[in-house]
Amino acid sequence: MPASQDIPPIAVPFVSERAKQLLDKVEKFVDEEAIPADPVYSAQIGSGESRWHGHPSILDDLKKKARAAGIWNMFLPKNHFKEGPQFTNVEYGLMAEQLGKSITASEACNCAAPDTGNMEVIARYGTAAQKEKWLKPLMAGEIRSGFLMTEPDIASSDGSNIKLRIENKGDHYLLNGQKWWSSGAGDDRCKVFIVMGKTNPNHPNKFEQQSMLLVPADTPGIIVHRMLSVYGYDDAPHGHGHISFQNVKVPLDSILLGEGRGNEIMQGRLGPGRIHHAMRAIGAAERALEWMINRLNDERKIPFGKPLREHGVLLEWVAKARIEIDASRLIVLNAAIKVDQKDAKFALKEIAEAKVKVPQVALEVIDRAIQVHGAMGVCQDTPLASMWAHLRTLRIADGPDEAHLQQLGKRENKQRAADVTARIARQQGKTEQLFRQLGVEKKELGAEKFKAKL
Amino acid sequence: MPASQDIPPIAVPFVSERAKQLLDKVEKFVDEEAIPADPVYSAQIGSGESRWHGHPSILDDLKKKARAAGIWNMFLPKNHFKEGPQFTNVEYGLMAEQLGKSITASEACNCAAPDTGNMEVIARYGTAAQKEKWLKPLMAGEIRSGFLMTEPDIASSDGSNIKLRIENKGDHYLLNGQKWWSSGAGDDRCKVFIVMGKTNPNHPNKFEQQSMLLVPADTPGIIVHRMLSVYGYDDAPHGHGHISFQNVKVPLDSILLGEGRGNEIMQGRLGPGRIHHAMRAIGAAERALEWMINRLNDERKIPFGKPLREHGVLLEWVAKARIEIDASRLIVLNAAIKVDQKDAKFALKEIAEAKVKVPQVALEVIDRAIQVHGAMGVCQDTPLASMWAHLRTLRIADGPDEAHLQQLGKRENKQRAADVTARIARQQGKTEQLFRQLGVEKKELGAEKFKAKL
Amino acid sequence: MPASQDIPPIAVPFVSERAKQLLDKVEKFVDEEAIPADPVYSAQIGSGESRWHGHPSILDDLKKKARAAGIWNMFLPKNHFKEGPQFTNVEYGLMAEQLGKSITASEACNCAAPDTGNMEVIARYGTAAQKEKWLKPLMAGEIRSGFLMTEPDIASSDGSNIKLRIENKGDHYLLNGQKWWSSGAGDDRCKVFIVMGKTNPNHPNKFEQQSMLLVPADTPGIIVHRMLSVYGYDDAPHGHGHISFQNVKVPLDSILLGEGRGNEIMQGRLGPGRIHHAMRAIGAAERALEWMINRLNDERKIPFGKPLREHGVLLEWVAKARIEIDASRLIVLNAAIKVDQKDAKFALKEIAEAKVKVPQVALEVIDRAIQVHGAMGVCQDTPLASMWAHLRTLRIADGPDEAHLQQLGKRENKQRAADVTARIARQQGKTEQLFRQLGVEKKELGAEKFKAKL
Amino acid sequence: MPASQDIPPIAVPFVSERAKQLLDKVEKFVDEEAIPADPVYSAQIGSGESRWHGHPSILDDLKKKARAAGIWNMFLPKNHFKEGPQFTNVEYGLMAEQLGKSITASEACNCAAPDTGNMEVIARYGTAAQKEKWLKPLMAGEIRSGFLMTEPDIASSDGSNIKLRIENKGDHYLLNGQKWWSSGAGDDRCKVFIVMGKTNPNHPNKFEQQSMLLVPADTPGIIVHRMLSVYGYDDAPHGHGHISFQNVKVPLDSILLGEGRGNEIMQGRLGPGRIHHAMRAIGAAERALEWMINRLNDERKIPFGKPLREHGVLLEWVAKARIEIDASRLIVLNAAIKVDQKDAKFALKEIAEAKVKVPQVALEVIDRAIQVHGAMGVCQDTPLASMWAHLRTLRIADGPDEAHLQQLGKRENKQRAADVTARIARQQGKTEQLFRQLGVEKKELGAEKFKAKL
Repeated sequence: MPASQDIPPIAVPFVSERAKQLLDKVEKFVDEEAIPADPVYSAQIGSGESRWHGHPSILDDLKKKARAAGIWNMFLPKNHFKEGPQFTNVEYGLMAEQLGKSITASEACNCAAPDTGNMEVIARYGTAAQKEKWLKPLMAGEIRSGFLMTEPDIASSDGSNIKLRIENKGDHYLLNGQKWWSSGAGDDRCKVFIVMGKTNPNHPNKFEQQSMLLVPADTPGIIVHRMLSVYGYDDAPHGHGHISFQNVKVPLDSILLGEGRGNEIMQGRLGPGRIHHAMRAIGAAERALEWMINRLNDERKIPFGKPLREHGVLLEWVAKARIEIDASRLIVLNAAIKVDQKDAKFALKEIAEAKVKVPQVALEVIDRAIQVHGAMGVCQDTPLASMWAHLRTLRIADGPDEAHLQQLGKRENKQRAADVTARIARQQGKTEQLFRQLGVEKKELGAEKFKAKL
Repeated sequence: MPASQDIPPIAVPFVSERAKQLLDKVEKFVDEEAIPADPVYSAQIGSGESRWHGHPSILDDLKKKARAAGIWNMFLPKNHFKEGPQFTNVEYGLMAEQLGKSITASEACNCAAPDTGNMEVIARYGTAAQKEKWLKPLMAGEIRSGFLMTEPDIASSDGSNIKLRIENKGDHYLLNGQKWWSSGAGDDRCKVFIVMGKTNPNHPNKFEQQSMLLVPADTPGIIVHRMLSVYGYDDAPHGHGHISFQNVKVPLDSILLGEGRGNEIMQGRLGPGRIHHAMRAIGAAERALEWMINRLNDERKIPFGKPLREHGVLLEWVAKARIEIDASRLIVLNAAIKVDQKDAKFALKEIAEAKVKVPQVALEVIDRAIQVHGAMGVCQDTPLASMWAHLRTLRIADGPDEAHLQQLGKRENKQRAADVTARIARQQGKTEQLFRQLGVEKKELGAEKFKAKL
Repeated sequence: MPASQDIPPIAVPFVSERAKQLLDKVEKFVDEEAIPADPVYSAQIGSGESRWHGHPSILDDLKKKARAAGIWNMFLPKNHFKEGPQFTNVEYGLMAEQLGKSITASEACNCAAPDTGNMEVIARYGTAAQKEKWLKPLMAGEIRSGFLMTEPDIASSDGSNIKLRIENKGDHYLLNGQKWWSSGAGDDRCKVFIVMGKTNPNHPNKFEQQSMLLVPADTPGIIVHRMLSVYGYDDAPHGHGHISFQNVKVPLDSILLGEGRGNEIMQGRLGPGRIHHAMRAIGAAERALEWMINRLNDERKIPFGKPLREHGVLLEWVAKARIEIDASRLIVLNAAIKVDQKDAKFALKEIAEAKVKVPQVALEVIDRAIQVHGAMGVCQDTPLASMWAHLRTLRIADGPDEAHLQQLGKRENKQRAADVTARIARQQGKTEQLFRQLGVEKKELGAEKFKAKL
Repeated sequence: MPASQDIPPIAVPFVSERAKQLLDKVEKFVDEEAIPADPVYSAQIGSGESRWHGHPSILDDLKKKARAAGIWNMFLPKNHFKEGPQFTNVEYGLMAEQLGKSITASEACNCAAPDTGNMEVIARYGTAAQKEKWLKPLMAGEIRSGFLMTEPDIASSDGSNIKLRIENKGDHYLLNGQKWWSSGAGDDRCKVFIVMGKTNPNHPNKFEQQSMLLVPADTPGIIVHRMLSVYGYDDAPHGHGHISFQNVKVPLDSILLGEGRGNEIMQGRLGPGRIHHAMRAIGAAERALEWMINRLNDERKIPFGKPLREHGVLLEWVAKARIEIDASRLIVLNAAIKVDQKDAKFALKEIAEAKVKVPQVALEVIDRAIQVHGAMGVCQDTPLASMWAHLRTLRIADGPDEAHLQQLGKRENKQRAADVTARIARQQGKTEQLFRQLGVEKKELGAEKFKAKL
């Protein structure tokens, strides 16, 4: 059944015919081109230090095919950007689910993080010159970019802790500080960093201390120290860099939107990104479920005298995966619709729900798929172990689950406490009134015996 | 915010203006009339054996109010029944969520199980005479009814195990056997039972052995032996009866649809019922969450020197409840839409997902609300303990979770195994082809060292 | 295999031959006398208001049998009390596990809460006169007692919140306030309450504000208002009372230990009580597991064509129950040994571990046993639903799980933070030193490429 | 507090003074030597293909220190081997816990798998010549060894599926087949493999088809094809090999114990190995908890305005880790005692409990420690990610959890079904007798009303 026919009925009204057609193209591309290319991509990366030089040519092949098929830059949402192919977040979300099944597909369609969020930022807030210089080659897939926010040694879940200093020296900005988890920084094609830092560290409003700059990756003073691994994966050639800024100078027109507005930009950037990540995670979970089903039907595996597909515990895993993946998808699509209706801020609660729930569900499904594969599941012979390790970072990136849960819980409590306590008090008052009015006796348990004692 | 404004955005296209208006009326009725009446209802039931005689007059008051407000019989879905107020399953589902917050609301609106399912059955399959005799007073809320399927001593998750014997004696049917968990059988107003039994126990197709009859509750030979409790609750005056049939005679025109078609009727009956139960369970969970929030803001409770609402663990419970309730609601509404599009059989997977997931979520939310209330939570001073006990039965009724999970898992595996295994094989074949075609070497880990050994 | 042969090997050195012999007697008594008597006991309680009058005669029969067999007052631990039969906490713990399988067994052996804790308190802290008046009839099983600590409307997990006022009026104490969850207060035989209140509400040390008094249950001014239910169970004739004290006068010699020492007494009282409760909970879990196994082998239950015992999911439940029950037992026995070695304070951590873990494990086992029984599991036809409801209160009584977890977490962190942070720093320092000393280069991922950039 | 003072009280009687002293030495060695050496060891392995050549010299330093300190070969249990230092499984278990905190410690003390199990096998079943040739250098730490059981493409949880063929050709054995997950096969020092295969594939008893041979690693026809990764980790220089046997010839005296006795050997080998693995996993969990506590007290991390150690959710994680680690340790020690009392077969149930429970607990503790560290947790900057990945394999190695749970569940059911069903029937019979004997009426719920109907 093509993906366009498998959209949850409740979401169908939100998907145009044009989007359905492209969705099926994306599904076909991922299934027939990207997934088969994944192991080749990995092999082309090579081993040892050479992993950080050059990049797999098969990705260029894929990019050509994808672009030719019109599967390109689908992420720029229609109600906000004239530059993109005019799909809604819901529509792109369904495509992103397909992309999430392959390690090459997102980049092949120029829909890979962090470029997507970066392009959104430049398209929305960039000057004409900034767009010409950076957005154009990014949208053409000619260069890649980094987003440098996270720093070592601070609590990353609270943006106001950022330390990288950006000083306005009159005719240039001077940057000093450190960043890490700068994804993509290992790649030769990564030409520009969006850097978050503090221009106004003493501003009384801690949300107006930050600014964002567009910084060429080869600016003197930028030192990539090392790459960080994810479990044992180095993610070459892309990588996750640990970088220091030592008296890095950039022109004043590198600033995005204006000094003190970094936090504002970041808020807008994160919302759609979380939806993209969540939908890709759902795609990964679906692929893991496919591998699980594939394994259950491996006729060579007959522990205790019956094929794996007749083992009740494993069938229960399939069923629970089905339920939780489907619930997760609905949560994300509902959030995407709310973003489409207005913006990410309007969908704060819904996005937070997706941010927390989806990775946990995907991780459990993948972990069970691994378990069903036995030792094969933890090694390079399936896509599962790598998928698990990379999705595990989603429970941490952009703030750990626990921070989002606290915020979600606090907001729910704050918004509703007054109403709820008033309502319950009112209901109880009405109950008292009914007892009196109807002359009904409130007999408590043991009332006859203990009343007698009074 | 009125309920009509709080419908998940993704579901909004499926709810008519007329339904929104009634939804708000239902919400207001539950909030202002039914919930305050609940404790009075309980008090009017009395204590000891008198609990089984008469019934609380406040329910008649509520019924009058509800009917006058047009909140009556909303459950009969529009695409199947001309007798009802013409709402879809989605629309009624949203109303059922409101009804689920109160113990009196469903009956007050003539939307209480098992009457709803029974009315559906008679409306769909009954003869004109059967409708005149039983459907009319049921729809008017003048009588109540029972649905007698479950039997002791057999595995209830498999309908083919039913033992109650229905013999066609030429001019009447003769019934012998036992039923239990006959909900409503304790109530003086319960006038008719729909009885499932076997007319054709030797039919080769085990799904065509069963038939359903309409049996007046006062037919000689029907003996109500006792009532069954649910975690200490007797559920008087309604009750859950253990009943035997000893040479019970009913006329031949008591049969519904025809001999051997009991299973067919049951399948249609269960689907919408599961949606109703699930949405009511969501309403119960929402009410439990309200009580949790109410408790968190009780200024008298300040363990370890800070109010409960500042305890991180409890805020996390609020957040997790929010996420899981919202996910559950979307699962049910999506299932309801599929039923609306065709019928319950078409939505088998979606209904099963709702059947399993929703009660588990609701039970956990309620259990945590109980925990937050401490000892108060397990006793009669909140609606929580009773809510928990009754929702617990949903994990068992109409087949235990585990049976549904097995079926869901088997179906998913069966439907997808051929496709999935073929796809993965095809993808792997394509990968091999790419390696050859591009002349890329498949270097395995340690390849240089160990290759040398060959 | 008799219980004495089934003691975990690791615990065997801590159990004397004498204790093993009595343990087997207790097991036999519970199996052959108490469990069969349980349903008779329930039937003798009757229905309606009569439940609170009189008490089941079968319990007197059991008490006679138990006492004659020397199964009496086993709870008073040997290193602390000369009055008891000289068993250690470990030894009695193993007996308590057996008692926990039956609803009548504990009382039949005069080992029922709250009498056990109360007897310990009087034996340890009481004057000769107090012992003569109250301990003697309690140890003879002639009267019962209550322990009145919990109050409505305060956070019960923090003892310093207690409000009941005890004023020293020179020649008597004057009590005013409220208590609830006063277990046993419904019983005609309950003759004395140990009442916790504040004599010194303004004492700067909040742990020295409380005192405990021995108060005859029939003292004027003590009003039992009602009984509290546990889920739907009323626990008659014992009951859980909601009581008010209105100008209740008791002589000055009613005080235990001295003014301001209530908290000190309570601390000692709770420790062993938690061990008893935990071991009884384990007994309940074992009995639930027996019912689960019994059900799995019910030949009438063959869902999907095979007996329940061949369903993999259910076998996994049996296995998980086995593992977690065994782990729980070891946790409690280890705690008991530490109490035996010194006292409850010495075993604070271990007791807290048992307090939190055991009820959660037991509840899950019982819940699964219920699930395996289907509808039969939630009603009066098995001991399971009642067992579940009563064990559920253990997650709340003496402070909710969450309070204990916070304390356990804080203590662990506080005790270990300095050591742990120093150790890790020291280890890292040593690592640096080794790198230097051995001249090993710390090559980070991608080092060659990125070093080149410097 | 030294480790010898922190033995759970319940286990103390099983630990000799001599073992306590060595335990403290081991702890000190791990803390002061091995853990600081771990990062140096990793650095010395190098990058790229060179990882598979040579081995880190720091390990030789450690070995010298360990041997000099008498911390050597502690694993050979006293009741079975005269060759070892005469510690029991309990005693060595406590030492293994310490070893499990470091990646170098086990090998440094010559206590690393698979050598330990292999040495046990040769010591127990080897001929004098086999001992001279292989056991001696193994015990001296001069060579290493592999254990080749697992094969690709079969269900590894059932040993009877093994395919590697061992033909007795009269004057030699001829081996053909494949093995994978041959841990250690990448190491230049690995000189001998214990190979499991089928000499008697048609033997009617499927447990007597297998034999074990001692095969020199450099025998012609043995081809190491590649190394398998574990979540991105290659585990060089040790590695996990994928090996084929192509007409490999070994002399007849290579056989262990005799043809057809491979399964018998394997059973004995796995038991103690599982205890060692479990205790090392507990050590890893303890170390993760230390890192968690270290992080909670990092003063630079103050999300939402308070240090991590004041966040309730995180404190609850510390507490739950404490409880579950302690419960796990008791489970393993209890199993070890049973092995000490007789042998692994005698402790089948207890070992299975440890096999399933411990890795799951350790993985959860480590995962939470990772989560507390945020992005730092998944990379090379803590030992946590690597620890997690490697412990994850324990849920699969020697059969997946699910296989062990099925066996545990089946055994429990089988052993107890007859007794349990008889007991419950007997108890119910006694109850009936009591009702009759005492003339007590069995009044069911609603009895008065419904009896009237009869």
